[in-house]
Amino acid sequence: MLTEGQRDRFDVVLVSPRNPLNIGAAARAMANFGFARLAVVAPHEPHWQEARSAVGAEELLATARETATLAEAVAGCTLVAGTGTLTYRKPEQRVVRLPEFAPLARLEMERGGRVGLVFGPEKHGLTREDLSYCHLLVEIPTDARQPSMNLGHAVAVCLYELSVRDLATSDGAREPATKAVGRAADSARLELLAGVVERAMVASEYSPAAMREANRHDLRLLLRRLAPSERDARRILGLFRRILWRLER
Amino acid sequence: MLTEGQRDRFDVVLVSPRNPLNIGAAARAMANFGFARLAVVAPHEPHWQEARSAVGAEELLATARETATLAEAVAGCTLVAGTGTLTYRKPEQRVVRLPEFAPLARLEMERGGRVGLVFGPEKHGLTREDLSYCHLLVEIPTDARQPSMNLGHAVAVCLYELSVRDLATSDGAREPATKAVGRAADSARLELLAGVVERAMVASEYSPAAMREANRHDLRLLLRRLAPSERDARRILGLFRRILWRLER
Repeated sequence: MLTEGQRDRFDVVLVSPRNPLNIGAAARAMANFGFARLAVVAPHEPHWQEARSAVGAEELLATARETATLAEAVAGCTLVAGTGTLTYRKPEQRVVRLPEFAPLARLEMERGGRVGLVFGPEKHGLTREDLSYCHLLVEIPTDARQPSMNLGHAVAVCLYELSVRDLATSDGAREPATKAVGRAADSARLELLAGVVERAMVASEYSPAAMREANRHDLRLLLRRLAPSERDARRILGLFRRILWRLER
Repeated sequence: MLTEGQRDRFDVVLVSPRNPLNIGAAARAMANFGFARLAVVAPHEPHWQEARSAVGAEELLATARETATLAEAVAGCTLVAGTGTLTYRKPEQRVVRLPEFAPLARLEMERGGRVGLVFGPEKHGLTREDLSYCHLLVEIPTDARQPSMNLGHAVAVCLYELSVRDLATSDGAREPATKAVGRAADSARLELLAGVVERAMVASEYSPAAMREANRHDLRLLLRRLAPSERDARRILGLFRRILWRLER
């Protein structure tokens, strides 16, 4: 089981959930496995209020955060993981099977980071745009004939795996190489960095002034692949600000 | 994943399920993890027929067995495991945590046996009488403050655990988690990159013209912490070359 401190550094994020029963079921699964922090992005408002006020609704629904965008929901997270199946898409980021994700999440929390686990809407899952805020994609290994899971089930299975696997993961937690690196930059810092790099790209005429959406998307993915530490992100930011100042002078 | 032969020797048994949505959800979870044999004991008849005939109902609901008693449902099983939490009862049989149950079930099937996994009604779970047909009680480790799981979730979590655990140790080990990322940049590429970044640092007056050895060392370490792929390293190099060209013009 995770410690109380670890649970407080783990966010479950539901993007635009539709079905109030699913929201309630996801909250129930969180309570079952001792998770408490829920964020809901751009929910369908009537259904969200219905789920929140349902008889026997989990306490954590009352304290859930509601944000307009996924970027806001994961702003404080240093490791953001999207969920989904790979059947219909070719992923642009690192793919980790759920059993291998648990030790990564644990390590991140032990280093003082914050983990966000993101679930998409019932119908179509996370979009390519949503996934560009994710460092990696967690895949639940399912049968090829029926790969698509119910939202509540997916939440339950993921949180079960994260909460139960303590013995299997203690080794990974001791891994020394990552100790020296320090806490990862959070999503808000990466967005700030992306903004400054983008301006430098435009100022240096590396990209046209009207930077295309596709470039912005690629830049977001690139920064998450690099996954700089907070300290390194500050240094890179400092360098780019200096470059920008010179280019724009 | 289990083999086809093993799946055919595994029965999921629902005792008197009430909610048609839960029956459908349990069937969906079975399909997600590749299980096909479902038995339903003394169901509430209208709800059972409703679940069976629901639009998009899983095929395995059509072929599910219906029995009057749990004894009949598990008659062919050589290992019967009940599920539930231990909060309110003192178990009379061996209790096994779910992660430890998977290898026991597998061993039983490898020996040519048949395993039955039994889930109780939504309200109160399996009775003492029901449990008397079980060789052991499987406990899903849940939080003491909210131990009772949704029926569909419990089925999903159990079947996930049973289907995934050997993949993680055999197939999973062979599959590199970093597949989507691509080959890492080699040292020569990183050194080339370091040289161009250093020149940009000097040209932008971020660092003095005579860049100190310590800075160069830090830059080298930074690039290795970022550990870009070969492709990403090329892109970053391209950006810095453009910036440098502009700065030195």
